Amino acid sequence: MNKFDVIVIGGSAAGLVSAMTGKANYPDKKFLLIRKEKDALVPCGIPYIFGTLESSDQNVMPLGGLSKAGIEFKQDEVIEVDRKNKTVKTASGEKFQYEKLIFATGSTPHVPNWLKGSNLENVFVVPKNKLYLDELKSKLNNMKKIVVIGAGFIGVEVSDELNKCGKDVTLVEILPSILGKAFDIDIAREAENTLIERGLNLKTNVAVKELIGTDKVQEVILENGEKLEADAVILAMGYTPNTCLAKKSGLELNKLGALEVDSYLRTDDKDIFAAGDCAAKVDFITRKDTPIMLASTAASEARIVGMNLYKLSVMRSFTGTVAIFSTAIGDISFASAGITEEESKRNGFEVTVGKFQGVDKHPATLPGTKKQIVKIIAAKDSKIIMGGEVIGGESAGELINVIGLAIQKNMTVTELYTSQIGTHPLLTSAPTQYPLIKAVENIILKI
Amino acid sequence: MNKFDVIVIGGSAAGLVSAMTGKANYPDKKFLLIRKEKDALVPCGIPYIFGTLESSDQNVMPLGGLSKAGIEFKQDEVIEVDRKNKTVKTASGEKFQYEKLIFATGSTPHVPNWLKGSNLENVFVVPKNKLYLDELKSKLNNMKKIVVIGAGFIGVEVSDELNKCGKDVTLVEILPSILGKAFDIDIAREAENTLIERGLNLKTNVAVKELIGTDKVQEVILENGEKLEADAVILAMGYTPNTCLAKKSGLELNKLGALEVDSYLRTDDKDIFAAGDCAAKVDFITRKDTPIMLASTAASEARIVGMNLYKLSVMRSFTGTVAIFSTAIGDISFASAGITEEESKRNGFEVTVGKFQGVDKHPATLPGTKKQIVKIIAAKDSKIIMGGEVIGGESAGELINVIGLAIQKNMTVTELYTSQIGTHPLLTSAPTQYPLIKAVENIILKI
Repeated sequence: MNKFDVIVIGGSAAGLVSAMTGKANYPDKKFLLIRKEKDALVPCGIPYIFGTLESSDQNVMPLGGLSKAGIEFKQDEVIEVDRKNKTVKTASGEKFQYEKLIFATGSTPHVPNWLKGSNLENVFVVPKNKLYLDELKSKLNNMKKIVVIGAGFIGVEVSDELNKCGKDVTLVEILPSILGKAFDIDIAREAENTLIERGLNLKTNVAVKELIGTDKVQEVILENGEKLEADAVILAMGYTPNTCLAKKSGLELNKLGALEVDSYLRTDDKDIFAAGDCAAKVDFITRKDTPIMLASTAASEARIVGMNLYKLSVMRSFTGTVAIFSTAIGDISFASAGITEEESKRNGFEVTVGKFQGVDKHPATLPGTKKQIVKIIAAKDSKIIMGGEVIGGESAGELINVIGLAIQKNMTVTELYTSQIGTHPLLTSAPTQYPLIKAVENIILKI
Repeated sequence: MNKFDVIVIGGSAAGLVSAMTGKANYPDKKFLLIRKEKDALVPCGIPYIFGTLESSDQNVMPLGGLSKAGIEFKQDEVIEVDRKNKTVKTASGEKFQYEKLIFATGSTPHVPNWLKGSNLENVFVVPKNKLYLDELKSKLNNMKKIVVIGAGFIGVEVSDELNKCGKDVTLVEILPSILGKAFDIDIAREAENTLIERGLNLKTNVAVKELIGTDKVQEVILENGEKLEADAVILAMGYTPNTCLAKKSGLELNKLGALEVDSYLRTDDKDIFAAGDCAAKVDFITRKDTPIMLASTAASEARIVGMNLYKLSVMRSFTGTVAIFSTAIGDISFASAGITEEESKRNGFEVTVGKFQGVDKHPATLPGTKKQIVKIIAAKDSKIIMGGEVIGGESAGELINVIGLAIQKNMTVTELYTSQIGTHPLLTSAPTQYPLIKAVENIILKI
């Protein structure tokens, strides 16, 4: 039997980063990464293989780093973990010994069992699986009418890409607005309008009743009785942590099915760590379990795992997960961090909100200038910043990281208001009208 | 004699923002803003009136906000402040009473008195003065050979704009590399190469000896004996605070000629405030007086002035000025925050440095992807982040604000390393290879 010091199960963002960080911190240890798939895809790049990128080959995470770092790689599936003897067994029958084990097993698309017709032909999901997605893409080539169910980020991005390629796409969402986890309705409406202007059919506030067809799917029936013709249906209804193996190994899961971990990302077995979609997260603001699944969060956790393998050196310096989302529809970007106004109210927080609309270059007469809207949500008494939402151009993707850091550092509105921000005509809004600062000012003047 | 509660002298970034913030916080007070110029220009937009913008008219800061807010505006020059009687006298002979006075008098281009020939015709500076700049622009129309002296941000940006318009531009810098206040040589070299690729003539590490001509300037003589033909010379050799009036009023200046202020931006007269280029600044890292002149810094100070006019409510929550610079040459952006590696060594700090080169979208196969380099400077013992430099695409302008905030919050490399960053294929680098985090990792692995 082959002996390793550290075995990593899974090789997407969490697996690769924990292996690379671990090896960099403990260069003398022997690392093995076991992954089912030959090629892993850049997770958040997946929607773009349907349009912007020519094929999924352009969206592969290179493995070169692993071998260069001296980490062994095996394409195989771990089917059993023997915690007593500290071994793992793979589908191909091999057995490996470990000292430290890392679960980075990710998540799979959720298909609700109440949805009649979900097993019909041409009903698809969006897994992080290159072979499946390549086949999906090639099948869609000959199809025209696509119904996408679920308007989270994957649903919205896949819909927009397919629409861009000339498909007739209808996006259906049960909630009153799209991207509801990230945006309040006032901001989400702008994203909806952008999608509609680009030719997408959007149906919000309506549930899907069933999928109908003989063998192949033909129609989507909505709860309001409406029928949508469909050559294909794509279910984008969220993801479930891959924790069957962990459960079988007797490790503790939380009520969302994710592996329980402590601040050092250890499971209840001190030699077994977990990171990414399969690991439990506590929301930074609400302190509740949260099913946030982001490659950026996974990478952040994986770094902590990598450092802590043989000595607990780094606690999560932040006491919970801040969801930081961003996306682009055409040339308009939408981004959010922390909690939305609605979600904060649902959780019983008393908040004040500031909002400001400006532009993302200055003067606004400069070519390429785009509207920039910033909304900030702060606790009413402590004035601590709890969330932010941004609409803008390309720079919104980093602007939201400014807000994300302010949230993680528990900054108050006054502190952010008097902080120093760099600006440049071609790159940012004006210093006098910087929407983030003006949104915060808006709150200060209310208080 | 007209009585006002608050009089603001100057109406660029510092003047406008302190007046607007003051009025928003104290709506019952009567505000007057006195400014020499009819139109004030967006300060950092000035270089772009020479190329990207059609004319300076597109770069005017609108006054509409003032009257809408109920702030009176007067185009005039304050020539005397009588602190005993709390009055100001203007060039047109008017007198106004004040309760609180704000100096927002800005700065003027520095012309060194050792420079022979600087009074020749067609030797220009770049003041924040629309009429002067309009005339300069129209004169340059018929000229071909332009020599720009001084490669700070104004010198670099004006050179690049004129070069873009087909002029034959030579940029001369006495220091070993351009933009030396903001970038170490390794980063500055990339900016230099970008300029050279765009056709600019660049001469670094060489001083100007004198300007020669009969009436009109004809040649620039360098210390190494080289002669540069010149139809026009533009001096971009820094700016001097406009504090003659303040000095005449008996207010204390620091050794750089700027108005001494406390943490509340009060001068040594408790009813007189100062903000922007004319106000003293202490560097966040070195704790020394610094001549940082940025509209973004001015706006940040002006907000504090506006809030503190009648009650000291907001101290600068940060204990010094963090210079946050950004610029773009063509479609490549350069940005920096805090201290450079060289400057930190000159000041006796023991530092470690991390650097990482990645890309600004992911996968890098996406259209429009640009190289992104991040360099981080941290204190060796405390591991506190002291500075950062970025090369990238458009998003570098906000990415540097993430670093700027980390510096202002005294974050350590470990803290930033384990913090959460949002990423998106079309907007940022990959979560697994986010250059800021990787640069910080580079430091951690060294320690």
